[in-house]
Amino acid sequence: MDQPGPLNLTHLLTKFSDHWSQRTIGTLNDYEIKLAKLLGEFVWHSHADTDELFLVLSGTLNIQLRDRDVILRPGEVFVVPKGVEHCPKADEEVGVMLLEPKGVVNTGGCEKGDLIITPRPMK
Amino acid sequence: MDQPGPLNLTHLLTKFSDHWSQRTIGTLNDYEIKLAKLLGEFVWHSHADTDELFLVLSGTLNIQLRDRDVILRPGEVFVVPKGVEHCPKADEEVGVMLLEPKGVVNTGGCEKGDLIITPRPMK
Repeated sequence: MDQPGPLNLTHLLTKFSDHWSQRTIGTLNDYEIKLAKLLGEFVWHSHADTDELFLVLSGTLNIQLRDRDVILRPGEVFVVPKGVEHCPKADEEVGVMLLEPKGVVNTGGCEKGDLIITPRPMK
Repeated sequence: MDQPGPLNLTHLLTKFSDHWSQRTIGTLNDYEIKLAKLLGEFVWHSHADTDELFLVLSGTLNIQLRDRDVILRPGEVFVVPKGVEHCPKADEEVGVMLLEPKGVVNTGGCEKGDLIITPRPMK
Protein backbone atom coordinates (compact mmCIF):
# COMPACT_ATOMS: atom_id res chain seq x y z
CA MET A 1 0.00 0.00 0.00
CA ASP A 2 1.23 3.44 -0.79
CA GLN A 3 1.52 5.21 2.51
CA PRO A 4 1.47 8.97 2.72
CA GLY A 5 4.76 10.60 3.57
CA PRO A 6 5.91 14.15 4.15
CA LEU A 7 4.51 16.85 1.89
CA ASN A 8 7.39 19.04 0.78
CA LEU A 9 5.56 22.24 -0.05
CA THR A 10 8.29 23.89 -2.11
CA HIS A 11 8.86 20.76 -4.15
CA LEU A 12 5.14 20.25 -4.78
CA LEU A 13 4.88 23.83 -6.04
CA THR A 14 7.26 22.91 -8.88
CA LYS A 15 4.76 20.33 -10.15
CA PHE A 16 2.46 22.85 -11.79
CA SER A 17 2.74 26.28 -13.30
CA ASP A 18 -0.72 27.73 -13.89
CA HIS A 19 -2.08 30.54 -11.75
CA TRP A 20 -5.16 30.73 -9.53
CA SER A 21 -5.68 26.99 -9.84
CA GLN A 22 -5.61 25.18 -6.54
CA ARG A 23 -4.09 21.72 -6.13
CA THR A 24 -5.24 19.63 -3.20
CA ILE A 25 -2.25 17.87 -1.65
CA GLY A 26 -3.79 16.47 1.51
CA THR A 27 -6.62 16.59 3.98
CA LEU A 28 -7.05 17.39 7.65
CA ASN A 29 -10.38 15.92 8.73
CA ASP A 30 -12.88 17.68 6.46
CA TYR A 31 -10.40 20.38 5.45
CA GLU A 32 -8.30 20.43 2.31
CA ILE A 33 -4.64 21.39 2.22
CA LYS A 34 -4.09 23.10 -1.09
CA LEU A 35 -1.31 24.76 -3.03
CA ALA A 36 -1.65 27.52 -5.57
CA LYS A 37 0.43 29.92 -7.60
CA LEU A 38 -0.88 33.44 -7.81
CA LEU A 39 0.00 36.21 -10.24
CA GLY A 40 -1.87 39.42 -10.81
CA GLU A 41 -5.05 40.50 -9.10
CA PHE A 42 -7.97 38.22 -8.24
CA VAL A 43 -11.57 39.38 -7.80
CA TRP A 44 -13.18 40.70 -4.67
CA HIS A 45 -15.07 37.96 -2.90
CA SER A 46 -15.86 36.56 0.50
CA HIS A 47 -16.71 33.19 1.97
CA ALA A 48 -19.91 33.41 3.97
CA ASP A 49 -19.42 30.19 5.92
CA THR A 50 -15.72 29.81 6.53
CA ASP A 51 -12.41 31.39 7.39
CA GLU A 52 -9.58 30.88 4.90
CA LEU A 53 -5.94 30.33 5.83
CA PHE A 54 -3.09 31.57 3.64
CA LEU A 55 0.54 30.58 4.23
CA VAL A 56 2.92 32.24 1.81
CA LEU A 57 5.75 29.99 0.60
CA SER A 58 7.39 32.24 -1.97
CA GLY A 59 6.98 35.81 -3.16
CA THR A 60 5.00 38.62 -1.55
CA LEU A 61 1.21 38.49 -1.42
CA ASN A 62 -1.04 41.45 -0.80
CA ILE A 63 -4.36 40.33 0.62
CA GLN A 64 -6.40 43.43 0.01
CA LEU A 65 -9.19 44.02 2.50
CA ARG A 66 -11.67 46.86 2.16
CA ASP A 67 -10.00 48.87 4.93
CA ARG A 68 -6.37 47.84 4.62
CA ASP A 69 -3.78 45.68 2.90
CA VAL A 70 -2.25 42.65 4.58
CA ILE A 71 1.20 42.01 3.15
CA LEU A 72 2.42 38.44 3.51
CA ARG A 73 5.97 37.24 2.94
CA PRO A 74 7.33 33.68 3.00
CA GLY A 75 6.68 32.00 6.33
CA GLU A 76 3.77 34.30 7.13
CA VAL A 77 0.19 33.23 7.76
CA PHE A 78 -3.04 35.18 7.59
CA VAL A 79 -6.56 33.97 8.18
CA VAL A 80 -9.26 35.86 6.30
CA PRO A 81 -12.29 35.75 8.60
CA LYS A 82 -15.51 34.42 7.18
CA GLY A 83 -17.66 37.03 5.54
CA VAL A 84 -14.77 39.45 5.03
CA GLU A 85 -14.32 40.71 1.50
CA HIS A 86 -10.82 40.21 0.19
CA CYS A 87 -8.93 40.38 -3.07
CA PRO A 88 -5.51 38.73 -3.27
CA LYS A 89 -2.95 40.54 -5.42
CA ALA A 90 0.47 39.32 -6.46
CA ASP A 91 2.71 41.68 -8.40
CA GLU A 92 5.16 38.82 -8.83
CA GLU A 93 4.39 35.11 -8.74
CA VAL A 94 3.49 33.92 -5.26
CA GLY A 95 3.34 30.35 -3.97
CA VAL A 96 0.81 29.71 -1.20
CA MET A 97 -0.58 26.94 0.92
CA LEU A 98 -4.31 27.27 1.62
CA LEU A 99 -6.47 25.56 4.17
CA GLU A 100 -10.24 25.59 4.16
CA PRO A 101 -13.11 23.15 4.40
CA LYS A 102 -13.69 20.80 1.48
CA GLY A 103 -15.98 22.10 -1.19
CA VAL A 104 -15.15 25.78 -0.88
CA VAL A 105 -14.49 27.25 -4.29
CA ASN A 106 -11.77 29.85 -4.52
CA THR A 107 -14.34 31.79 -6.49
CA GLY A 108 -14.86 31.75 -10.22
CA GLY A 109 -18.27 30.20 -9.84
CA CYS A 110 -20.69 31.04 -7.10
CA GLU A 111 -21.48 28.20 -4.77
CA LYS A 112 -22.98 28.02 -1.34
CA GLY A 113 -20.78 29.90 1.03
CA ASP A 114 -18.94 31.77 -1.66
CA LEU A 115 -19.99 35.25 -2.60
CA ILE A 116 -18.48 37.04 -5.52
CA ILE A 117 -18.31 40.77 -5.13
CA THR A 118 -18.32 42.93 -8.20
CA PRO A 119 -14.90 44.51 -8.39
CA ARG A 120 -14.88 48.19 -7.64
CA PRO A 121 -13.64 50.53 -10.33
CA MET A 122 -9.90 51.12 -10.34
CA LYS A 123 -8.94 54.32 -8.60
CA MET B 1 -9.27 48.35 17.38
CA ASP B 2 -6.27 46.09 17.18
CA GLN B 3 -6.66 44.31 13.88
CA PRO B 4 -4.95 41.01 13.24
CA GLY B 5 -2.05 41.14 10.83
CA PRO B 6 0.32 38.57 9.37
CA LEU B 7 1.59 35.85 11.66
CA ASN B 8 5.33 35.54 11.11
CA LEU B 9 5.90 31.96 12.24
CA THR B 10 9.67 32.16 12.68
CA HIS B 11 9.43 35.39 14.63
CA LEU B 12 6.69 34.07 16.90
CA LEU B 13 8.82 31.03 17.68
CA THR B 14 11.39 33.34 19.28
CA LYS B 15 8.80 34.48 21.84
CA PHE B 16 9.06 31.37 23.99
CA SER B 17 11.64 28.74 24.79
CA ASP B 18 10.02 25.86 26.68
CA HIS B 19 9.44 22.52 24.99
CA TRP B 20 6.26 20.53 24.37
CA SER B 21 4.15 23.53 25.34
CA GLN B 22 1.84 24.72 22.59
CA ARG B 23 1.09 28.38 21.99
CA THR B 24 -2.09 29.27 20.14
CA ILE B 25 -1.39 32.05 17.66
CA GLY B 26 -4.63 32.10 15.71
CA THR B 27 -7.78 30.28 14.76
CA LEU B 28 -9.32 28.93 11.57
CA ASN B 29 -13.01 28.42 12.26
CA ASP B 30 -13.02 25.95 15.17
CA TYR B 31 -9.39 24.97 14.64
CA GLU B 32 -6.41 26.36 16.51
CA ILE B 33 -3.16 27.36 14.84
CA LYS B 34 -0.43 26.56 17.33
CA LEU B 35 3.32 26.77 17.61
CA ALA B 36 5.55 24.54 19.69
CA LYS B 37 9.19 23.77 20.28
CA LEU B 38 10.03 20.12 20.60
CA LEU B 39 13.14 18.48 22.05
CA GLY B 40 13.58 14.85 22.96
CA GLU B 41 10.98 12.13 22.71
CA PHE B 42 7.29 12.53 23.52
CA VAL B 43 4.99 9.70 24.57
CA TRP B 44 3.05 7.37 22.33
CA HIS B 45 -0.49 8.57 21.93
CA SER B 46 -3.29 8.96 19.44
CA HIS B 47 -6.23 11.27 18.91
CA ALA B 48 -9.40 9.24 18.53
CA ASP B 49 -11.48 12.00 16.98
CA THR B 50 -9.19 14.09 14.84
CA ASP B 51 -6.29 14.27 12.43
CA GLU B 52 -3.34 16.43 13.46
CA LEU B 53 -1.29 18.57 11.08
CA PHE B 54 2.42 19.20 11.62
CA LEU B 55 4.38 21.78 9.61
CA VAL B 56 8.07 21.83 10.51
CA LEU B 57 9.59 25.32 10.62
CA SER B 58 13.08 24.52 11.91
CA GLY B 59 15.04 21.38 12.73
CA THR B 60 14.24 17.79 11.80
CA LEU B 61 11.29 16.01 13.36
CA ASN B 62 10.80 12.27 13.44
CA ILE B 63 7.13 11.41 13.77
CA GLN B 64 7.41 7.81 14.84
CA LEU B 65 4.51 5.62 13.78
CA ARG B 66 4.23 1.99 14.83
CA ASP B 67 5.25 0.75 11.40
CA ARG B 68 7.60 3.47 10.18
CA ASP B 69 9.21 6.82 10.83
CA VAL B 70 8.11 9.97 9.04
CA ILE B 71 11.02 12.41 8.86
CA LEU B 72 9.99 16.05 8.46
CA ARG B 73 12.32 18.90 7.56
CA PRO B 74 11.55 22.63 7.34
CA GLY B 75 8.76 23.34 4.88
CA GLU B 76 7.37 19.82 5.14
CA VAL B 77 3.88 18.88 6.30
CA PHE B 78 2.52 15.61 7.63
CA VAL B 79 -0.99 14.85 8.81
CA VAL B 80 -1.25 12.13 11.44
CA PRO B 81 -4.58 10.43 10.75
CA LYS B 82 -7.03 10.16 13.61
CA GLY B 83 -6.61 7.07 15.68
CA VAL B 84 -3.04 6.45 14.56
CA GLU B 85 -0.50 6.04 17.34
CA HIS B 86 2.44 8.36 17.03
CA CYS B 87 5.37 9.58 19.06
CA PRO B 88 7.19 12.72 17.95
CA LYS B 89 10.94 12.68 18.50
CA ALA B 90 13.36 15.57 18.09
CA ASP B 91 17.08 14.89 18.54
CA GLU B 92 17.68 18.61 18.18
CA GLU B 93 15.23 21.41 18.90
CA VAL B 94 12.42 21.55 16.36
CA GLY B 95 9.98 24.39 15.71
CA VAL B 96 6.55 23.33 14.45
CA MET B 97 3.20 24.75 13.50
CA LEU B 98 0.27 22.55 14.49
CA LEU B 99 -3.33 22.61 13.39
CA GLU B 100 -6.12 20.72 15.07
CA PRO B 101 -9.60 21.38 16.43
CA LYS B 102 -9.89 23.49 19.56
CA GLY B 103 -9.78 21.56 22.78
CA VAL B 104 -7.48 18.76 21.68
CA VAL B 105 -4.75 18.26 24.25
CA ASN B 106 -1.32 17.38 22.94
CA THR B 107 -1.45 14.69 25.57
CA GLY B 108 -0.18 14.97 29.12
CA GLY B 109 -3.65 14.47 30.52
CA CYS B 110 -6.25 12.21 29.03
CA GLU B 111 -9.26 13.98 27.65
CA LYS B 112 -11.96 12.96 25.28
CA GLY B 113 -10.45 12.16 21.97
CA ASP B 114 -6.96 11.78 23.32
CA LEU B 115 -5.61 8.39 24.16
CA ILE B 116 -2.30 7.95 25.88
CA ILE B 117 -0.51 4.76 24.96
CA THR B 118 1.94 3.30 27.41
CA PRO B 119 5.37 3.74 25.88
CA ARG B 120 6.93 0.52 24.70
CA PRO B 121 10.23 -0.51 26.26
CA MET B 122 13.28 0.90 24.59
CA LYS B 123 14.90 -1.55 22.20
